[in-house]
Amino acid sequence: MASAHPITEYTSPASWAMIEDKFSPYAKDTLAKLITFFEDEIAPARKLAHAQLPTDPVQRWKTVIPVVAELKTKAKKLGLWNLFLSKKHYPEHGVPLTNLEYAVMAELLGRGGHIASEAVNCSAPDTGNMEVLAKYGTAEQQKKWLIPLLNGEIRSSFAMTEKNVASSDATNIRTLIRREGDEIVISGHKWWISGAGDPRTKLHIVMGKSDPGNKNTYNQQSVVLVPADARGITIVRPMTVFGYDDAPEGHCEIIYDNVRVPLGNLVLGWGRGFEIIQGRLGPGRIHHCMRSIGAAAEALDTMLRRVTDPSRRTFGKYLYEHGAVVAEIAKSRADIESARMLVLSAALQIDKYQAKGALKEIGIAKFVVPSMALTVIDRTIQAFGAEGVSQDQALAATWAGLRTLRIADGPDAVHIQQVGQRELKRAPALAKRAAERAKKEEALFAKARL
Amino acid sequence: MASAHPITEYTSPASWAMIEDKFSPYAKDTLAKLITFFEDEIAPARKLAHAQLPTDPVQRWKTVIPVVAELKTKAKKLGLWNLFLSKKHYPEHGVPLTNLEYAVMAELLGRGGHIASEAVNCSAPDTGNMEVLAKYGTAEQQKKWLIPLLNGEIRSSFAMTEKNVASSDATNIRTLIRREGDEIVISGHKWWISGAGDPRTKLHIVMGKSDPGNKNTYNQQSVVLVPADARGITIVRPMTVFGYDDAPEGHCEIIYDNVRVPLGNLVLGWGRGFEIIQGRLGPGRIHHCMRSIGAAAEALDTMLRRVTDPSRRTFGKYLYEHGAVVAEIAKSRADIESARMLVLSAALQIDKYQAKGALKEIGIAKFVVPSMALTVIDRTIQAFGAEGVSQDQALAATWAGLRTLRIADGPDAVHIQQVGQRELKRAPALAKRAAERAKKEEALFAKARL
Amino acid sequence: MASAHPITEYTSPASWAMIEDKFSPYAKDTLAKLITFFEDEIAPARKLAHAQLPTDPVQRWKTVIPVVAELKTKAKKLGLWNLFLSKKHYPEHGVPLTNLEYAVMAELLGRGGHIASEAVNCSAPDTGNMEVLAKYGTAEQQKKWLIPLLNGEIRSSFAMTEKNVASSDATNIRTLIRREGDEIVISGHKWWISGAGDPRTKLHIVMGKSDPGNKNTYNQQSVVLVPADARGITIVRPMTVFGYDDAPEGHCEIIYDNVRVPLGNLVLGWGRGFEIIQGRLGPGRIHHCMRSIGAAAEALDTMLRRVTDPSRRTFGKYLYEHGAVVAEIAKSRADIESARMLVLSAALQIDKYQAKGALKEIGIAKFVVPSMALTVIDRTIQAFGAEGVSQDQALAATWAGLRTLRIADGPDAVHIQQVGQRELKRAPALAKRAAERAKKEEALFAKARL
Amino acid sequence: MASAHPITEYTSPASWAMIEDKFSPYAKDTLAKLITFFEDEIAPARKLAHAQLPTDPVQRWKTVIPVVAELKTKAKKLGLWNLFLSKKHYPEHGVPLTNLEYAVMAELLGRGGHIASEAVNCSAPDTGNMEVLAKYGTAEQQKKWLIPLLNGEIRSSFAMTEKNVASSDATNIRTLIRREGDEIVISGHKWWISGAGDPRTKLHIVMGKSDPGNKNTYNQQSVVLVPADARGITIVRPMTVFGYDDAPEGHCEIIYDNVRVPLGNLVLGWGRGFEIIQGRLGPGRIHHCMRSIGAAAEALDTMLRRVTDPSRRTFGKYLYEHGAVVAEIAKSRADIESARMLVLSAALQIDKYQAKGALKEIGIAKFVVPSMALTVIDRTIQAFGAEGVSQDQALAATWAGLRTLRIADGPDAVHIQQVGQRELKRAPALAKRAAERAKKEEALFAKARL
Repeated sequence: MASAHPITEYTSPASWAMIEDKFSPYAKDTLAKLITFFEDEIAPARKLAHAQLPTDPVQRWKTVIPVVAELKTKAKKLGLWNLFLSKKHYPEHGVPLTNLEYAVMAELLGRGGHIASEAVNCSAPDTGNMEVLAKYGTAEQQKKWLIPLLNGEIRSSFAMTEKNVASSDATNIRTLIRREGDEIVISGHKWWISGAGDPRTKLHIVMGKSDPGNKNTYNQQSVVLVPADARGITIVRPMTVFGYDDAPEGHCEIIYDNVRVPLGNLVLGWGRGFEIIQGRLGPGRIHHCMRSIGAAAEALDTMLRRVTDPSRRTFGKYLYEHGAVVAEIAKSRADIESARMLVLSAALQIDKYQAKGALKEIGIAKFVVPSMALTVIDRTIQAFGAEGVSQDQALAATWAGLRTLRIADGPDAVHIQQVGQRELKRAPALAKRAAERAKKEEALFAKARL
Repeated sequence: MASAHPITEYTSPASWAMIEDKFSPYAKDTLAKLITFFEDEIAPARKLAHAQLPTDPVQRWKTVIPVVAELKTKAKKLGLWNLFLSKKHYPEHGVPLTNLEYAVMAELLGRGGHIASEAVNCSAPDTGNMEVLAKYGTAEQQKKWLIPLLNGEIRSSFAMTEKNVASSDATNIRTLIRREGDEIVISGHKWWISGAGDPRTKLHIVMGKSDPGNKNTYNQQSVVLVPADARGITIVRPMTVFGYDDAPEGHCEIIYDNVRVPLGNLVLGWGRGFEIIQGRLGPGRIHHCMRSIGAAAEALDTMLRRVTDPSRRTFGKYLYEHGAVVAEIAKSRADIESARMLVLSAALQIDKYQAKGALKEIGIAKFVVPSMALTVIDRTIQAFGAEGVSQDQALAATWAGLRTLRIADGPDAVHIQQVGQRELKRAPALAKRAAERAKKEEALFAKARL
Repeated sequence: MASAHPITEYTSPASWAMIEDKFSPYAKDTLAKLITFFEDEIAPARKLAHAQLPTDPVQRWKTVIPVVAELKTKAKKLGLWNLFLSKKHYPEHGVPLTNLEYAVMAELLGRGGHIASEAVNCSAPDTGNMEVLAKYGTAEQQKKWLIPLLNGEIRSSFAMTEKNVASSDATNIRTLIRREGDEIVISGHKWWISGAGDPRTKLHIVMGKSDPGNKNTYNQQSVVLVPADARGITIVRPMTVFGYDDAPEGHCEIIYDNVRVPLGNLVLGWGRGFEIIQGRLGPGRIHHCMRSIGAAAEALDTMLRRVTDPSRRTFGKYLYEHGAVVAEIAKSRADIESARMLVLSAALQIDKYQAKGALKEIGIAKFVVPSMALTVIDRTIQAFGAEGVSQDQALAATWAGLRTLRIADGPDAVHIQQVGQRELKRAPALAKRAAERAKKEEALFAKARL
Repeated sequence: MASAHPITEYTSPASWAMIEDKFSPYAKDTLAKLITFFEDEIAPARKLAHAQLPTDPVQRWKTVIPVVAELKTKAKKLGLWNLFLSKKHYPEHGVPLTNLEYAVMAELLGRGGHIASEAVNCSAPDTGNMEVLAKYGTAEQQKKWLIPLLNGEIRSSFAMTEKNVASSDATNIRTLIRREGDEIVISGHKWWISGAGDPRTKLHIVMGKSDPGNKNTYNQQSVVLVPADARGITIVRPMTVFGYDDAPEGHCEIIYDNVRVPLGNLVLGWGRGFEIIQGRLGPGRIHHCMRSIGAAAEALDTMLRRVTDPSRRTFGKYLYEHGAVVAEIAKSRADIESARMLVLSAALQIDKYQAKGALKEIGIAKFVVPSMALTVIDRTIQAFGAEGVSQDQALAATWAGLRTLRIADGPDAVHIQQVGQRELKRAPALAKRAAERAKKEEALFAKARL
């Protein structure tokens, strides 16, 4: 019963008041069902999922975690599925939810770690890959890859980042994609390819250069669909994030050594790779941000329990009675509330003006939110002491995952610069306004004979 | 013509998208008119107002600034008047604007310094005083004091803070208010009484103890209306704020030496002073916050002009091409956007649940926003160099005024503690939720035989 | 040849100028030799040490890393051995180095990760354990445990922290230590026992309560020497720190189930456990701080190389030409320089007045330095992008290790509170001084007739 | 009697331990005398000096404050005079104190506001001007201007900053200095000329361009000595800093309209102006930093008194028992201690290698210390509430003065960039070191057959 877990406990009364009238009845109902599913099924399964992952360094990469598979089956039956894919932007395959509506759900999912998003088929990089296929895929490509992805039957990777390459500048990419007769041949060295370790992953969407000599550096790239079992693909090793390997998905180093796929595996057209990745990034960033806020909110809730735990008293006082704990709680709450409103307003901009019309808002969210969430979680870690950095709490692993968000999809500094540059574009209009004010000011002084 | 100055330039596209559908047609129209009035009349008058204030240390306290008087006349005619007083809460005297709607206007007014709020009769402490009189005043009190205040004919002070007293704790107050026959006699030593220096100020609303021995410390205080020209009132001196005396209003040290007023000047009833000041503080804090955001937004606009000014280039580069300027601009923009959404959502809470139902949101806004605005303005000061700290820019004076907001109406630390304590109250419910999750977790482990 | 690596590259010219005249010729010579050894032997061995640790989850805990063993042999021959143990405080076993002199060496060692300290037999927890045995051990205890430790033949653990106990308050400890005839029986549940996983570890120094009912809560504890292979000891599991298990040493959860040792294994006397741990903590904290500074300094050097690497250019610019990189470098340098001087001055205080006379300085260093180092390393991680969080750079692992320093030996908040309280003790003297000034001020006003 | 005020109360035990052996007996004795003079004479005179300054807007610029004049007479008799001028660098006129020794005295003086430095003839801009005259002045120039300045008989200004000019880039300067026969003619518009309002100021040292077309932009400038009463000088107005005019010295806007002086008033030579101002800036910046630290230390002492003041209790608790006060005190202490050691080590660098050899250290101090001091003072202001921003405490005025230090002598950002750039110069050596390590690493791997 949804009423056991009011929506305002997972967003906040003030945030909810601001957006409630923008939610359709369907979205409200779905959100309520998702909360119940989260509390009854997802949250209790988190530790079991961890326990069901073998510690053996080989077996852990060959495992489909049973409880996660069960969650997926249940979620699909409940219609809690592919919530990220907005019908408005993807009429054929999407669900009738706006980005704003999904954003609130993404925050909730962010409270539950990786398995929460996976349970409802809303995990990166599948989400972005489904968007690419839904938007740019041919009927055949969609049949072969999109449908199984939408059904949660397979998983996928997006292979862009390259080793020893400053990959925030796409013109640096070195993987080569060339046509040979009816085939496309891919050669390159990628790393940090999320999901590539997973036994369910059947597709790599690979970005490379098909026309490196093109004067327009944004037309050099193409994107190709590569079956995960194609000849020539070598998974070199999983990269670790702080000490975590994030098995079974992992973030892998991969060599593509003359991998051959049919011509029909090209996406959208030769030289349109940059266009594809641009389209892929907008809403996904907002989803990441909302999940980060959820992770922070869950950490704050966890901190509240810890500092009021009678068994944790030291020197005769509750933890919250020491030092600056109450102040840190207040600041964390404030940080979470303002970050949420910021991202929700960006999500609404996307709904109204597509990602292209919300670039400043997305950029702000991208550099503000992960840092905020890291700070809140770090405070909770500190409240937990040594247990906080260990495997007995989700905090350290969550922190490590969020730390990568300050790097992935463009490092903070890039977004900060872009937002700053967008602001600078307002200067001419402001100069004009200032000049008009100055003219009127002068007239007033003249009239006042001063 | 309003269209020359789109609303989204004074709030932001993303903020506006979030709240537009909560604005009545009247509010939209009023906002558009206010923007035009601001650009055409208020902003250009700011320097003249400063110039019309005599430097002579005596005369500056006897002056009604001509251009401000003219602005008031014009604003009243345009219906841009008493915008702070929401009809919903003050049916008889209020205007048909919600707190949310006025909040956006308050941000705009915050761009124009003290004269902007004064021009539309929305200056503290008059605003809070009008609220007190509208809510608690007798018909006679309202006729004598409220109507002239609503008409902008007189101004007023609120006398609470006392010298050498830790006044954030109202139980420390020492001013005595006692009945003698048909009269009330007030004796006390106050300071930081804003507006008391102004020749137009005709009323002091004085808080003191009428029953210091009452065991209920919240019933010891009473509030009395005292004519500014009553015998026994001595204005000792104006206090300065970082060197500014804020004439003609000022923040004065005042001695009330056996000042006598009729019994009818008591507000609400004996011992109800605490109740009165509680009711006075909610929306006013939000207005202060929105004005702070406006001041920050204006500073950022000013910074954008400065750093793109060709005449300010050093070492062959525009200022924005140096160091971390672009990053500071981006952060300022992010800070302003998130602060605005935070305060707007608090304003909406007040509209929905009164100030009492929005205490956490108000508290968060109160400790987050002034610090944020101070930081943004300080960055702009730094971009201006020495000119930034001087009388040639409004920046330093604005900064000094905002600095007091971290102290007035309760210092930051008090609000931080209160917000933190409110969060702590969520702990029992969270512990219950955690226990439920743990129980389900256990069942899952059992079922999985792990 | 030492001159290839001037000392000022490993401290800084300004720091060195301040302390050079406090260094003995022996210390200068030892430092020069250590630098050479560091560059020629330790730094190049770091990755090999990592590669020589098996990935197999069982084998990695049974391994003595060959290259580290070789380093130890070489270091011992060179006289670069037990540098932490100051002869002044430990005349029999110590080396003729002051805490200040060793502090500079500890910074250097901090540049090389765990193996650097281990190579010269200066690893925690052995260092503190050797101090305990040297200071409080009987001749027999010293012969059995101290000498092998000083020789680097065995390693050791210090078992204090307990599971589910707020262990920063020693009165919460639950492990019981009781006498039964000629034996001492220990029962308890500890965790985060560093070094306990190592096959070379032969000794656990265990802290527990021998007199839990004693009214003086500081006399309840005793400390006992327990052979690592004693019956009743179960190593439950290694704890992880942000995903790292830090094998082979590890930080283990351990159950002591009626472990029996001879009476002669008691240290110092019954009820003197608190006294022992107090004596153990002073200089060790400074060593940790200096190593943290070294880690930060090495990270900054690494960042400087990265941002000037021509192969890392993006959008036609070196990394250092983007955004705020240069500013971050400058701030990191400033942070490192001021932190170093702070800790060096604390080390000198210990040399002059023992740890007891330097508690404020030690406390300041303890809460300032790890945070500083984390910030500097985090900036470097950011400059490296995804590689920075991975196993291909030492940065993430170093960060994780330093993160625990904000918790171990008392969390930041405890040290902050203690330093603050020490400051508050100055208030009476300050009040007296203020009163004297006020009296003279009054006299001056009187004389000036003002 | 010096012993009433131990030196370690005005620096700190740990700082003093680090530098005591670098102090000559003379310096120790002078410092002890200065402390006594400070406590007995300077500190008690601060409020009287303020009271003796007329409020009348004209008279306050014509006043020599009596108590300051008396202090100067006393200080001179005691030999506490011109302490800033190191004999080592100025053999003829200097006092036998190093920069390090004076630095500690400057910190003490920083506790006493402007009058403290003035009392011992160590006020800017006189200090830098005396250095210029002592270093570059002709015998005649020295006789006429340096001797009276050294005697404290006159005061002086340094006229460099120009209105509407980005003056951190000296090549932007527009004031023209040209030769006409036996005369030098100066025309320009300056502002922020400190001391120019003072009736005792007899000399302006004016920087301008004598050869604006010179290809070497560092040879375009010259420096000329201009009597304060020369024809053509108009003091336009005093600039305010936040609301302070800093009378009687002031920071004035000045027009030089064809001011004529004899050829002999040229300093050093035509085109050598840049060289002169470079030489002027090093030690002065360190003095400013030490005074800032003194101001912060005095603020912290003041905070300690306030938060322990029984009359300030609220809600039944001392102020220090609320919220994060103790933590703020601890952080302030830590900030002060580390800043002091940082600046002292920079001062020692200057003593050893002249300012030229200490540019990085000076730069670091310049951007670290004023911000630190502002933060500490702001915390104290917050502890004082409204009184903290007012004329009843020195805090707000001190804060405002320090705020200009983040702008004057180059804004923070310039120093941050310069320090960062100096660090970047270390990159090639670091790359070489890394390459050597890599080579050895490779050999180790080869030997280990890994």
